[in-house]
Amino acid sequence: MAFHIVLVEPEIPANTGNIARTCAATGTHLHLVRPLGFRTDDATLKRAGLDYWYAVNLTYYDSFSEVEERFKGHRFFYASTRANKRYSDFEYKDGDLFVFGKETKGLPQELLDANPNQLIRMPMTDKVRSLNLANSAAIVVYEALRQTDFPGMLD
Amino acid sequence: MAFHIVLVEPEIPANTGNIARTCAATGTHLHLVRPLGFRTDDATLKRAGLDYWYAVNLTYYDSFSEVEERFKGHRFFYASTRANKRYSDFEYKDGDLFVFGKETKGLPQELLDANPNQLIRMPMTDKVRSLNLANSAAIVVYEALRQTDFPGMLD
Repeated sequence: MAFHIVLVEPEIPANTGNIARTCAATGTHLHLVRPLGFRTDDATLKRAGLDYWYAVNLTYYDSFSEVEERFKGHRFFYASTRANKRYSDFEYKDGDLFVFGKETKGLPQELLDANPNQLIRMPMTDKVRSLNLANSAAIVVYEALRQTDFPGMLD
Repeated sequence: MAFHIVLVEPEIPANTGNIARTCAATGTHLHLVRPLGFRTDDATLKRAGLDYWYAVNLTYYDSFSEVEERFKGHRFFYASTRANKRYSDFEYKDGDLFVFGKETKGLPQELLDANPNQLIRMPMTDKVRSLNLANSAAIVVYEALRQTDFPGMLD
């Protein structure tokens, strides 16, 4: 049993580190698509993940199509501020993947265009352009976990 | 209509900055109880909040009792890894306050002891001690917003 977070070309090491900590805390698998905006020995990355990196199921890819290939048959959900549906409008299940783009630009438009029914957004006021990437990932994965009654987690 | 996030003696400026961004994104009011572990002109704090500080309804206090005094009649929920109930077990409503302690230690034990029925936790695996503070705040406030159908937010 696991959900999956896919970060496509993340730029800010502290965000990826924080997401790694969330993954360790939830048994969520983490997939990083290169190029990354930081070195994997970056001190900020390590610090943000604290001493939890050992507990993260982590895989690197050279392109997003490698992720698609590996997870054929799974459902992909793409986070975008341009999505029409709320992240909380879907019923999530074991094996679902949540895909997030780079901090400054989000996911490539062609990827969004190719998956119009799988786009999710976090409702926001008109005051901000987006949430912090690590916060977005935490909100979505905890909604998926809530819906599935927090499988494998302590209570 | 608003929810409230209260940070009691936060230590890490990037976390408070990220929470400020979440507050701007959601219309949530932010309350900071001194002493803070950083100066309010800290560059990391400002950067983590991006250019959204102007949009945050922010108040400073010299003690938590000032917050209690100001919000008499409101419901307070205290985040703690030692809480028995899940954050998703409560039905939230307009005006609720969510209280978070410092990153290294959480909330004072006497505050938790005084409010045994108002403690909330995020379910986690046994791999980590806690989630990142900003992620915890985002998860809780978005659950409250989800339950109340994202009031005042764009769709």
